[in-house]
Amino acid sequence: GIGLDTSRELVKRDLKNLVILDRIDNPAVIAELKAINPKVTVTFYPYDVTVPLAETTKLLKTIFAQLKTVDVLINGAGILDDHQIERTIAVNFTGLVNTTTAILDFWDKRKGGPGGVICNIGSVTGFNAIYQVPVYSASKAAVVSFTQSIAKLANVTGVTAFTVNPGITKTTLVHKFNSWLDVETRVAERLLEHPIQTTLACAQNFVKAIELNKNGAI
Amino acid sequence: GIGLDTSRELVKRDLKNLVILDRIDNPAVIAELKAINPKVTVTFYPYDVTVPLAETTKLLKTIFAQLKTVDVLINGAGILDDHQIERTIAVNFTGLVNTTTAILDFWDKRKGGPGGVICNIGSVTGFNAIYQVPVYSASKAAVVSFTQSIAKLANVTGVTAFTVNPGITKTTLVHKFNSWLDVETRVAERLLEHPIQTTLACAQNFVKAIELNKNGAI
Repeated sequence: GIGLDTSRELVKRDLKNLVILDRIDNPAVIAELKAINPKVTVTFYPYDVTVPLAETTKLLKTIFAQLKTVDVLINGAGILDDHQIERTIAVNFTGLVNTTTAILDFWDKRKGGPGGVICNIGSVTGFNAIYQVPVYSASKAAVVSFTQSIAKLANVTGVTAFTVNPGITKTTLVHKFNSWLDVETRVAERLLEHPIQTTLACAQNFVKAIELNKNGAI
Repeated sequence: GIGLDTSRELVKRDLKNLVILDRIDNPAVIAELKAINPKVTVTFYPYDVTVPLAETTKLLKTIFAQLKTVDVLINGAGILDDHQIERTIAVNFTGLVNTTTAILDFWDKRKGGPGGVICNIGSVTGFNAIYQVPVYSASKAAVVSFTQSIAKLANVTGVTAFTVNPGITKTTLVHKFNSWLDVETRVAERLLEHPIQTTLACAQNFVKAIELNKNGAI
């Protein structure tokens, strides 16, 4: 989806390292990313954003020890299924907050850290809900609000933040998904009747946003 | 706090029943509410909004069996402590979504239910974050977004919804609270330098909002 195409775009750039954190290892994808630009070191670590904060901190300790510096964190984990209330909130919102909180331990300038950049994936539904998926939409509204606050704290922490907020994108997420209490059984079909973008177009704009790197941008 | 003063205002009205759901039983408070207006039957049930959906459904089954009808649900549980990330999200956002989802089982017109009214307590921070408490503020942004979606689904479910969004109110919540990663250690003191309202003033406006009962209002 968006994550993979964004990674493809990122490794075309002059990066030293790209660390992919995902629940499921996909060696073929990692090999493909490595082949696009052999100058970029691509590594993978298994990570489920719903683990407790302490586990995230432990994983980040390993990563920071290996890379010495990490410049950008992209929080991209997300699910779209309003039958799964707790999991939607845990992945889309709590996981993103915990991962952000954990990395501050390494970046916070009050602790002598070098600062850093956080890119959080919101959604246009954070501004204009798809009301048939109220839980998903609200979780994205939370991401936007949280990120705006983090951006305002940049003078304290040295960490800047912005959101990328894709419109309807042709990902596996939107092929078919459950509305809240089945208020609309054809919500995916109806959504796909709208103009939609490809994951590639989304990824290209995504990387553009990262390159612009404007604190507090939405 | 706001909940108690709102209950005091509510029992002055021509209600049949007021059911108080809270984590901790406070018999003195229930007795006081009963004394204000003996015509209103005030009952208390212990309830922690962070329990799984099925437990909420079970409790609501008991309540609906006892009262026959319930007209209004007020989701008022809330905490303000950005050191407790998971709990803030669980109480302020997930708990409110689960309670709302559970009561739909009894109210949903698609199941022959009579409809109902949901009043969710948001906060001005849902619109303009107090960025020193980004988790709290984001949880309230989520409440506002979620409620707006539920309001738009009223034609499907028969259930209307609105939020009440208090400004800074002199509750125990704001006496002293932790900012995210201690970005501002004097956040409570600084907040209380602003014009603030009493819980009574807040409760009176709160009940006014309930009486107006405008679907989708904020």
